[in-house]
Amino acid sequence: MIPALLVLNAGSSSLKFQVFEDRDEGGVGHPRPIFRGLVERLGEAPHLVIRDPAGAVLAEKGPPAMGGPFGHEEALLHVAGWLHDHEDGYRLAAVGHRVVHGGLAHAAPVRVDDAVLDALERLVPLAPLHQPHNLEPIRIMRRQWPGLPQVACFDTAFHRDQPEIAQLFAVPRSMAERGVRRYGFHGLSYAYVASVLGDYAPDLAGGRVVVAHLGNGASLCALRAGRSVATTMGFSTLDGLPMGTRCGSLDAGVVFYMLREMGLDADVAERVLYTRSGLLGVSGLSGDMRTLRARAASDRGARTAIDLFVYRIGREIGSLVAALGGVDTLVFTGGIGENDAATRAEILSGAAWAGFALDAAANARGGPRVTRGPGPSAWVIPTNEEAIIARGTQAVLAAVRQPAP
Amino acid sequence: MIPALLVLNAGSSSLKFQVFEDRDEGGVGHPRPIFRGLVERLGEAPHLVIRDPAGAVLAEKGPPAMGGPFGHEEALLHVAGWLHDHEDGYRLAAVGHRVVHGGLAHAAPVRVDDAVLDALERLVPLAPLHQPHNLEPIRIMRRQWPGLPQVACFDTAFHRDQPEIAQLFAVPRSMAERGVRRYGFHGLSYAYVASVLGDYAPDLAGGRVVVAHLGNGASLCALRAGRSVATTMGFSTLDGLPMGTRCGSLDAGVVFYMLREMGLDADVAERVLYTRSGLLGVSGLSGDMRTLRARAASDRGARTAIDLFVYRIGREIGSLVAALGGVDTLVFTGGIGENDAATRAEILSGAAWAGFALDAAANARGGPRVTRGPGPSAWVIPTNEEAIIARGTQAVLAAVRQPAP
Repeated sequence: MIPALLVLNAGSSSLKFQVFEDRDEGGVGHPRPIFRGLVERLGEAPHLVIRDPAGAVLAEKGPPAMGGPFGHEEALLHVAGWLHDHEDGYRLAAVGHRVVHGGLAHAAPVRVDDAVLDALERLVPLAPLHQPHNLEPIRIMRRQWPGLPQVACFDTAFHRDQPEIAQLFAVPRSMAERGVRRYGFHGLSYAYVASVLGDYAPDLAGGRVVVAHLGNGASLCALRAGRSVATTMGFSTLDGLPMGTRCGSLDAGVVFYMLREMGLDADVAERVLYTRSGLLGVSGLSGDMRTLRARAASDRGARTAIDLFVYRIGREIGSLVAALGGVDTLVFTGGIGENDAATRAEILSGAAWAGFALDAAANARGGPRVTRGPGPSAWVIPTNEEAIIARGTQAVLAAVRQPAP
Repeated sequence: MIPALLVLNAGSSSLKFQVFEDRDEGGVGHPRPIFRGLVERLGEAPHLVIRDPAGAVLAEKGPPAMGGPFGHEEALLHVAGWLHDHEDGYRLAAVGHRVVHGGLAHAAPVRVDDAVLDALERLVPLAPLHQPHNLEPIRIMRRQWPGLPQVACFDTAFHRDQPEIAQLFAVPRSMAERGVRRYGFHGLSYAYVASVLGDYAPDLAGGRVVVAHLGNGASLCALRAGRSVATTMGFSTLDGLPMGTRCGSLDAGVVFYMLREMGLDADVAERVLYTRSGLLGVSGLSGDMRTLRARAASDRGARTAIDLFVYRIGREIGSLVAALGGVDTLVFTGGIGENDAATRAEILSGAAWAGFALDAAANARGGPRVTRGPGPSAWVIPTNEEAIIARGTQAVLAAVRQPAP
């Protein structure tokens, strides 16, 4: 039986998963993906699709075949049942979970035990809209398969060895000591990009790189020699760039204005900033960049939302170039970064001051390199957070299996 | 009798004033200062000092000569009495007031009438710690000298013709329409610097300039051909750079954490961010850069606070260079910018990536030019907000005096 790793990435109404062969039992390898799947619309009308690594559909079920409205637990059991029926000589050896917040303690993946789970639970106030959904599958799996190793891989961990000065807010020290810091997120994506830079061009990996992870969530990260030195997201997943429905950078004074002058309570104000702001709020139309692009020629709100997104990315690129003391490479990744040539072109035009020279034809093709000439280069690099979680899970278990020295 | 202008800049516990000759009755001139003064420690033990333009003390009174604890009204009457006794052939023709917030309506100084005063009063929630103190002397002067023209000059006005994209937060449009925008502040200081750039070197005025107004309050402004295109402060005076006691940029999620997890009510949380944060909060020692510099060699908190201040300025310089599409000139002004050579040197070293080459000897002398070589230049330019208020006041009154066409 070949050991297999299950990687889970659970959101509020979805469950993404991927299964890898776990052949590199002795160390961190590049585990081979076997299949991947997605359950969407949890709590409403769940819909499951499972694909092979080439993208061919192996199974697809929607209502009514999936049964009535159900949540994460039923979805996990459903997926586990499918895995069991299609195990084809595999046995499940471990589960790796994406967990958005690892707090101050975690600069690397960790095997989950009761103490770790308690500590991660205490971080819910730092990521109230993500952390609970990430932890629920861990609890379910521990209950259903008590002996199966569970590993948590964190979106914050990649940023934990940034210089202290990049992590501090200018708040009272007592607040910084209790964890009010710039953590940064999307670290699994940045770790993946950092790990493959050298595959695109040998000299990229050692340079000064700004990675733009642009999806429904969006942030930028400055890498020096493959390590995070600064990032645009802060304490929560609200800060930095405007996102599909999240506000990005906001004057703290606006929150007080919402509470006192607009008469909102804190929960409502927070919900407005997480779910009614960003591209959706500015356009008044949609938080989906594809919809906005389709409407931008005729709809002023859509055009303004796109322009603001591109403008704020340009400003933050400047800020990260300053953190790096110059720039050699810009990488686009995430749903928008990988697929939206118009957004890439606008960002690169705005970054001409730093020496980027758009190669319009290459950009229209999707790259990988989308600049020309001797200046800094820009690339499209598809991210793969699941691969990083699989590697992290392998590494933790390999360390556990090593006999003590 | 020579007409004179009184310029007032009122803070929570201080009243700065300056008197100018108003000889250019037909247009905007460069009114000549006659004397300037400061009343400090209002509400406690008021202390008044009045100086001539060269800085020589003309009058100085502290307790007990000043009388018991008193506020703005008594201070204003005290100043008016002194003016009356020393009028030397002058008659008071108008008063110009510094007002921190002009909201959406005001891109220029305005003569205050009942409607204007009502409108400015409604902006108090946008600048709760500054606006009330700015408006109080207007009300007092109108009551005491009903016929005397009063002109309000705004810290926000200089930024009002920035591109829309620079003024928007990614919040719902309904919020932007009711005034939740990036206004920016320190506009009187930036307007002054913009007006004198050409006096330092003829080619500066038309270029891409980042002005660093670094004092107890601090922000940066990007000028293109003398006009503001972007600035670091936002909706309130909290945003952007860390300041003496203010936090600067803060993830909105931190405010929700303060309310819910730290159990603070909104007023207390706001007070922490305005008065216990910034250099004071990070150092745990002082919000005064002079104190921190004196202690930085031995005190880790002081060193960290300075490093964070310099680091955040460096990041924001990068962001504004992106907004400008490159940079020709960096200007230091404000108390720290004009007087703290060590902070200037650290900022310029961090900005070497943009081509700035520190001239250490010139910097130690205080400039005016503090860089060498063919790259972008940096300068020390003392600001003069009172001169801009005097000019703005003259301009408003000149327009009023013009016969209708």
